[in-house]
Amino acid sequence: MRILVTGASGFVGRHTIGHLAAAGHEVIAAGRLHSIEHPGIRWINDDLIQPTVAARIGATVRPDILLHLAWTVEAGKFWTDPDNLDWVAASLSLARACAEKGAQRICMVGSCYEYQWPADGLCREATTPSGSHTLYDVAKDSVRRVLEKYAAQIGISVAWARLFNLYGPFEDPNRLVASVAQALLAGRPAAVSSGKAIRDYMDIRDTGAALAALTTSDVSGIINVATGEDVSVADIVREIADLAGRPDLVRFGALPDRDEPLRIVADVDRLRNELKCPAPQKSRRENLADALSFWREASRPVAPTYVHEIP
Amino acid sequence: MRILVTGASGFVGRHTIGHLAAAGHEVIAAGRLHSIEHPGIRWINDDLIQPTVAARIGATVRPDILLHLAWTVEAGKFWTDPDNLDWVAASLSLARACAEKGAQRICMVGSCYEYQWPADGLCREATTPSGSHTLYDVAKDSVRRVLEKYAAQIGISVAWARLFNLYGPFEDPNRLVASVAQALLAGRPAAVSSGKAIRDYMDIRDTGAALAALTTSDVSGIINVATGEDVSVADIVREIADLAGRPDLVRFGALPDRDEPLRIVADVDRLRNELKCPAPQKSRRENLADALSFWREASRPVAPTYVHEIP
Repeated sequence: MRILVTGASGFVGRHTIGHLAAAGHEVIAAGRLHSIEHPGIRWINDDLIQPTVAARIGATVRPDILLHLAWTVEAGKFWTDPDNLDWVAASLSLARACAEKGAQRICMVGSCYEYQWPADGLCREATTPSGSHTLYDVAKDSVRRVLEKYAAQIGISVAWARLFNLYGPFEDPNRLVASVAQALLAGRPAAVSSGKAIRDYMDIRDTGAALAALTTSDVSGIINVATGEDVSVADIVREIADLAGRPDLVRFGALPDRDEPLRIVADVDRLRNELKCPAPQKSRRENLADALSFWREASRPVAPTYVHEIP
Repeated sequence: MRILVTGASGFVGRHTIGHLAAAGHEVIAAGRLHSIEHPGIRWINDDLIQPTVAARIGATVRPDILLHLAWTVEAGKFWTDPDNLDWVAASLSLARACAEKGAQRICMVGSCYEYQWPADGLCREATTPSGSHTLYDVAKDSVRRVLEKYAAQIGISVAWARLFNLYGPFEDPNRLVASVAQALLAGRPAAVSSGKAIRDYMDIRDTGAALAALTTSDVSGIINVATGEDVSVADIVREIADLAGRPDLVRFGALPDRDEPLRIVADVDRLRNELKCPAPQKSRRENLADALSFWREASRPVAPTYVHEIP
């Protein structure tokens, strides 16, 4: 299969494309940088936020499958970024161009923020309605609704992965695990919230493997890509501090808690039973140790030589 | 005020811009043709469906208010037209460009199809949820949701008019009143459905006046622009046939009924009490007589000399 992956050099994309190439697919990777070099991956560097560019790439590549990951993702900014409007435009232009040139399947990603917060904190694909928290989630959910209607009309399949909390190699340095790891490794205090929030934290390497599996499957509709396991932010932070040997540097309560529910966790029934994605092999402690190693390596003067492990 | 009106040569736009110009506003009218010529109206002819063009027009015109009417509207085709995707893109690009250049208000139009059909057939802005009938209404509703979130964030106002059934001068010849009028005037049989459907039929001249009032008001959110009055399709057709003197040519049941609820009518409380839009002055019979005159004139070999009456 020829698979066009956008956002391929981003946090999610770089952990996904290797699996697709290793499975023998022809991967056309569109992104701002090159991430993995592999004989099965051809890179396109272009400014995909422009609808005309997105449409041109779709029409030129003519993929069998589109995995569209590109979007505005800068931590702290993406919730309200007006670029969300342009990404709605570019995403729909890209989808139409690919579909009209023969694509039979389109996969895109959103997040748990598209859910109206359920009273019990468990987000279920079929029964938890869409919410309206920020411009980001409204924009994402709008793309999904239009895309699903369009796809049903022309007879192609659409999968919409909802990601929850992520961590691991190449995480944005302003996000939780990366920022705590970097602070502790540098011997600086790590300012965090109260840590009471219960979330669903997935290692990005597992996310990449699951998304690659989803892309080439025939599972359609909304599907949570997450662990299904409760963990408090405090437990995550304590575990990093323990692994780094610096529990003394953690400052719980130094940052305000977000105005969000105590618990936001994924129902992963579809992931396990329809996509047949196994539970992660490594423990959370092993994953956090790997993340810490990555940030230790990244803090050295020489560029890190991270190798994407692809089974 | 400088007001940018897109779709200004269309069925709705041509009946709206005259009111804005007559009220002393500077109207920049974007459309495929010129409709009204007036000293207060400057025309731009361009292909607004392209997001880059839409963004450029918004940024160049720098309107105080945007009234965006352009969309794919070809009768029978627009429900499923893939151009709905491009109109989502172009509409959001246009809105962003105008807002970033200082627009303080954005008005757009959708239709009754954005409502989930209510059990009693009365569509209420605040309480009837959005539905998902066709690509057209999902696309329109998605633009509204993104636009409202974006506008709230940057502090500008948005009004979203929902139109119901329309008729009058310059109607698409494939729609109900125009097609029946043309058939009867030509002495041909007029094929119609059973006619049992109860709808809300508004004269387009009243729609134009109401939209012009809405554009320069500070009413925000969803607002039905309709009559609030029940009328059966059969009664509309019988009245045209009576006015044309050809009841013998009407063929009820010659076309299938649409798979739609028996009754779809607007709650017009907001229109009357917030926008202070009075009930139409002319009776339906007078309006239908005017429509019939328009089509009689239009069928003559010489081009019609219709004059847009602006109070």
